[in-house]
Amino acid sequence: MKIAIFGFGTVGSGVYDVIKMNSDIIAKRAGKPIEIKYVLDLRDFPGNPVQEVLVHDVDTILNDPEVKIIAEVMGGINPAYDYTKRALSLGKSVCTSNKELVAAHGAELIELAKQHNCDYYFEASVGGGIPIIRSLCDCLVGDDILEIKGIVNGTTNYILTRMGEDGLDFNVALKEAQDNGYAERNPAADIEGTDAQRKAAILASLAAGAQVDCDDIPTEGIVNITAEDIACAKSLGAKIKLLASIRRDDEKVSAMVAPFLVFENCQLYHVNNVFNGILVTGNATGDVMFYGKGAGKLPTAGAVAGDIIEAAKYYGLPSDIIWSREKAHMSEQGSGVQRFYVRVSDKTAMEARKALGVTAESASSKAGEVAFLTEAMSENDFLSKIKNLEVLSKIRVYD
Amino acid sequence: MKIAIFGFGTVGSGVYDVIKMNSDIIAKRAGKPIEIKYVLDLRDFPGNPVQEVLVHDVDTILNDPEVKIIAEVMGGINPAYDYTKRALSLGKSVCTSNKELVAAHGAELIELAKQHNCDYYFEASVGGGIPIIRSLCDCLVGDDILEIKGIVNGTTNYILTRMGEDGLDFNVALKEAQDNGYAERNPAADIEGTDAQRKAAILASLAAGAQVDCDDIPTEGIVNITAEDIACAKSLGAKIKLLASIRRDDEKVSAMVAPFLVFENCQLYHVNNVFNGILVTGNATGDVMFYGKGAGKLPTAGAVAGDIIEAAKYYGLPSDIIWSREKAHMSEQGSGVQRFYVRVSDKTAMEARKALGVTAESASSKAGEVAFLTEAMSENDFLSKIKNLEVLSKIRVYD
Repeated sequence: MKIAIFGFGTVGSGVYDVIKMNSDIIAKRAGKPIEIKYVLDLRDFPGNPVQEVLVHDVDTILNDPEVKIIAEVMGGINPAYDYTKRALSLGKSVCTSNKELVAAHGAELIELAKQHNCDYYFEASVGGGIPIIRSLCDCLVGDDILEIKGIVNGTTNYILTRMGEDGLDFNVALKEAQDNGYAERNPAADIEGTDAQRKAAILASLAAGAQVDCDDIPTEGIVNITAEDIACAKSLGAKIKLLASIRRDDEKVSAMVAPFLVFENCQLYHVNNVFNGILVTGNATGDVMFYGKGAGKLPTAGAVAGDIIEAAKYYGLPSDIIWSREKAHMSEQGSGVQRFYVRVSDKTAMEARKALGVTAESASSKAGEVAFLTEAMSENDFLSKIKNLEVLSKIRVYD
Repeated sequence: MKIAIFGFGTVGSGVYDVIKMNSDIIAKRAGKPIEIKYVLDLRDFPGNPVQEVLVHDVDTILNDPEVKIIAEVMGGINPAYDYTKRALSLGKSVCTSNKELVAAHGAELIELAKQHNCDYYFEASVGGGIPIIRSLCDCLVGDDILEIKGIVNGTTNYILTRMGEDGLDFNVALKEAQDNGYAERNPAADIEGTDAQRKAAILASLAAGAQVDCDDIPTEGIVNITAEDIACAKSLGAKIKLLASIRRDDEKVSAMVAPFLVFENCQLYHVNNVFNGILVTGNATGDVMFYGKGAGKLPTAGAVAGDIIEAAKYYGLPSDIIWSREKAHMSEQGSGVQRFYVRVSDKTAMEARKALGVTAESASSKAGEVAFLTEAMSENDFLSKIKNLEVLSKIRVYD
C-alpha cells in the first residue's frame, strides 16, 4: 500500500519516522506493508533520506493511482482544503492532524469521502496521541454522550501549572513556556483559546452528530488569569484549568472554552504541565477520562500513523463517522448553570455577597481583596446580579 | 438486526436496559435498528418485560438464522465456552464481558470467528466501560506497545484507598467493601489477584499478539498488605496499588500482578476508590492513560452495547484482532528491574541496609520497625540479597 505525506514539518517528519521505525508491526496490523512513495514539501532537505521521495508538485501525487492514502499534516486551511478535496474526490483516503481544517470543513470532507468510498480520518486533530476521536466514534457508541470536558491545549495547561506551582505571573510563565519550546513566539492561538476552540468544535460536532462551528463557541483564553486568582483558587481547594466544555441536553448542545476552577475530586485536577485530559460522560458508561501528550512530534505522528493503518486495513470499506453538515441545535447562550468564583475589593465584598447570596467562606491572597464561590446559578442570572458591581475577576466552577 | 443476550444477571439486564434506553442513537450508529429477539436464562422473571423474549433453551437461539449477534454475559467457562463456539461456528458474532473465558480461550475464539466471517469482541472484559481493548487494537496501532500498567480491579483499589485514607486494617476495609456491594461475600478472586490476573492475560496477549496464559503471570494479591505498609508508603510519598504490569522487551513479554508503590507524579496515584486506570506506553505516543469505572452494571453493559454496534455495523466484514494461539515468548521470571520497598524490625535494619546498599531515609509507622526503598535492581538480585534477612514486608516500586 503506497502512501504520501503532505508537509515535512514537525508532524510530517514524525509520521515519516514512525512509519519507518515501526514498519514491521504496522505491516502486520494493516495486513500489508505501508510504503511512503512521496513526501510533498516546497522545501528541499539535502542530505536527508526523505529527499529521495520528495516532490514539490501536488499533482505528481494526486495523479499517481498507486497512492491510496495521504497524510495531510501541512496545517492551515489553504492549500490543505483544496488538496484534501481533490485527493478524496480521487478516492484517496486522507488522514490529518489539521484541526483548523477539520473544525471548519470536517462534515463536508467526511461526506466527500463517503461519496468516493474512502476515508477522512482526524484522530490527531484533538488530543495528539490520545485516541479520543476513535473512542467517541467507535467505542462509546452504546452511550448517549452527555458531556465532554477537556484540557485540550498543553501550552496553556503548562502556563497555568507553573503559575500554580511557583506563583509565577502570567507573563513570566508564558516566557518560560516559550523558552522551553512549549509556546510559539506568537502565542495568541494558545493563550486566547483559539486552538482549544477548534478542538471544542470538533468534539462538539461529534457529540451532536451535526455541525458546531467555532463561531458557536464563546471562547475566553487565560490572559486575564492573575497570580491572585490562582492563589485564591488554591486556598479554596481548586486549580484553574482552561477547559473545552461541551454539554448535551434535550437534543441541544452547548460548547464553550473558558478557564474553570476544578477541584481535587475531579481527574482533570491532576492533569498538569503539557498533558491533556479529556473527560467524557456517557449515560451508560459514566465518566471515562483519556490522558496523554496532546501535542509533540511523535505522539501526534503516532495518531496519524494509527489512522493510516485503519485506512489501509479497511481500504474500500470506509467507516461511517456521524457528523452531518446540518447545523447542530445550540442551547441558548448563558443558560448553563454552574457555580462562580468572584474576586472583589474589600469595599465591594459585602455588597457582592449580598447580591449573589453568598454565605460561604472567603479566600484572600492580597491585602484589600477577597474571593469567594457562589451557589450554582445560570450564567445570565449571575451576570445580571453582578451588573452594578466592580468585579476584579470572575471564573466559572466545574463541579 | 436481531440479537440475543445469554444471561440475565447484572450485566445481562444492563445490556437489555442500555439497548432499550439508547435505541435511537444505537440504530443511527449501527446503521440499522438493533432488536433483542431472545434472552437466555434458566430462571423466569415474572412481571419483567424481559419475560416476553426469555427462552431457557440455547438451541432456540442458535437455530434461529435471524439472530446475527449474541451478547454472552453469563460469565464462567462452562457452558459459555461451548455456546460461544457453537454460535461463532454458525457465523453469529459474539460480544462478551466474560474475562475468564477470553483469557483462557480468546485466541481460539478469535480464530474461529475469522473462519466463519464473524466477530468475537470483548471490550467489557477489561476495564468495564473504559475502551481499552479497542484502543489497543484499533487506535494505538501505529505504536509498538512497550508497557501497560493498570489498576484493573476496582474492589482491591477501593480497599487500598480506604486503608490509605483512614488507616483501616485490611479486614475492616474488606468488610466495608462487602457492605457497600463492591466486594463479594467470597472475595478471593479479587483480593488474591485472580481477577486482575485474567485481565493481565488479556492485555499481555494483545500487546504481544500471542497467547499469554494466566499461568504465565506470577500473581500476588493484597491480603498481606498491612496498615503499617500503607502508612510507611505514605511517609515515603507513595500509595500502594494493585497493578497488572506488562512489559515488552526484545520480542519478549513479561507480566505480573502485584501490589506496587506508586508515586504522585504517576497518574495511577490519582486513581482511587472503585475506579480503574490503565496506563499504556507506546514507542511513538508515549504514555496514554484510560480512566473510568471498571465494573458495574451500566458501564460494563455500555461496553458490550458498543461491541454489539460495531459487530452490527461491520457485519460480514469482520475485524482482525491480532492474538495468535501461539505462545508468546516470555521474559525470564525475576529479570525485571525496579526499586523495592522493604520493612524490617529495628534490629534487622542495619544489616538489611548493608545487604541492599541502602543509604536513603527511612520511614516508620510503628515502634521497633522501619521501612525504606532500595535502588533499582533485578528481582532475582533483590531476593538473593535478602535471603538471610527477616523481612516483614517487601513491595515492588513502580517508577
